Amino acid sequence: MTCQTLDRMSGRSLYFKCEQFQRVGAFKFRGASNVVRGLSDDEAARGVCTHSSGNHAQALARAAQERGIPAWIVMPRTAPEVKRAAVEGYGATIVTCEPTLEARETTAARVLADTGSMFVHPYDDDRIIAGQGTAAKELIEDAGPLDAVLAPVGGGGLMSGTCIAARALAPAAMLVGVEPAGADDAARSLAAGRLIPQTSPDTICDGLLTSLSERTFGILRDHLHSIMTVRDEEVLAARTLLLERAKLWVEPSSATVLAAVLRGDCPIPPGHRVGLILSGGNAAASA
Amino acid sequence: MTCQTLDRMSGRSLYFKCEQFQRVGAFKFRGASNVVRGLSDDEAARGVCTHSSGNHAQALARAAQERGIPAWIVMPRTAPEVKRAAVEGYGATIVTCEPTLEARETTAARVLADTGSMFVHPYDDDRIIAGQGTAAKELIEDAGPLDAVLAPVGGGGLMSGTCIAARALAPAAMLVGVEPAGADDAARSLAAGRLIPQTSPDTICDGLLTSLSERTFGILRDHLHSIMTVRDEEVLAARTLLLERAKLWVEPSSATVLAAVLRGDCPIPPGHRVGLILSGGNAAASA
Repeated sequence: MTCQTLDRMSGRSLYFKCEQFQRVGAFKFRGASNVVRGLSDDEAARGVCTHSSGNHAQALARAAQERGIPAWIVMPRTAPEVKRAAVEGYGATIVTCEPTLEARETTAARVLADTGSMFVHPYDDDRIIAGQGTAAKELIEDAGPLDAVLAPVGGGGLMSGTCIAARALAPAAMLVGVEPAGADDAARSLAAGRLIPQTSPDTICDGLLTSLSERTFGILRDHLHSIMTVRDEEVLAARTLLLERAKLWVEPSSATVLAAVLRGDCPIPPGHRVGLILSGGNAAASA
Repeated sequence: MTCQTLDRMSGRSLYFKCEQFQRVGAFKFRGASNVVRGLSDDEAARGVCTHSSGNHAQALARAAQERGIPAWIVMPRTAPEVKRAAVEGYGATIVTCEPTLEARETTAARVLADTGSMFVHPYDDDRIIAGQGTAAKELIEDAGPLDAVLAPVGGGGLMSGTCIAARALAPAAMLVGVEPAGADDAARSLAAGRLIPQTSPDTICDGLLTSLSERTFGILRDHLHSIMTVRDEEVLAARTLLLERAKLWVEPSSATVLAAVLRGDCPIPPGHRVGLILSGGNAAASA
């Protein structure tokens, strides 16, 4: 998708990859389906498992449903009913636990032991990263040569896949990750040269709260030009622009990339052709 | 665009034509550009004129700008600043008048006399109707054979063009117009067999307040299977579904067509392949 008004405002030619129109409303389906489709028949028969209450849980449930295999999703008992209903709607089994990381991990371990299913991490997995990278692959194939590509950074799975795909298909493109200022562990980690986990994130970008893993940190360190951080007010303003000018509805996490190219300190030169990955659109209409 | 959830809810296969992504954010650009591109060089040099404060004004201004010819838009002095700014942004000249129909018409007549420009009516014009019909043409070409096509009905330009295009490309398709209950002049006119103008419309569908003309009434009478009317509450619920489930942002007028297929009295049989024209997306983010 393109929008002349946003091109004018940013001084660049913007090409949006619209993952809000992807299955389950977010790029997460790409990685999950890559894992599920790649399982051997034996592995597939035993099913898959994850602990998540977000888009990854829905994506894994849906991918499992499409292959006709079981999925167990460990969710805290405090998860919103709408998220439970979505996962159940895709035919997965919800295993409820206390809302602590320890409870999630011990509950998942028990499910794995009981069922023989395979644990599928939301981003610390090469197969997931490869799947997420297909968004950038399609974007570059559709938009033609790009001078830069931006994606939001949470756990780093999308940005890692974007790096790998773009390095192959647009080797000279400047790769820029974007984080909310209130969850800037990737920026701090890259500046320090070592992984610094995110503690107590504070941002409206609820898809970007998690920390990098050693795996995604290494990929970002090797390929990114830079990480930009954007304030929540900038994210909200960018989200409204996407809606009113481009008629594109996204979740706050997705609007970070437009907020970044509208900042005066964006390192991408004016006039350049810029790809922006809008990661998803799962937000309530009133949000 | 398609959406499996909305297919399930409606019991039909729905194919959405997304005119919110059209230039100026609405189908109106199709008719306006058809008129402007078809002008002789002589006519073009004298420019175009209309009285409107809505999407047609922006569409005509933009079409004139693309051909590099003058456009005069007569607008009431009460028109919102955002609409004035949009028209001026496309390089048109705004002529302000009192907010009455009489003032609009006499002001437009004066502009026409002064400039020698051509008046372009928003819907009572065969060239406009032909242009609007290209939305249905593209929809049918993209979606394949359709059993039914729905479009909103205001002045009837979009529905008239839809009828003509669909009769040629999908001759057996059931053609259904949709109106808000608070501006149902087309339903009443077709029932009475004669044109009954809309007086004091009362609906949130601000693109559907106007009356049919004899021209559009005749086309609808000859081709429509039926007109459905939907209540504003149904429109709002359908608009939220489009946003949350299909991630599609539309103005209220556009959501009428989804509201119609979700009604129990929709005459289109279950399982049928249905084309729905979403007419535009020009609404504030807070609306």
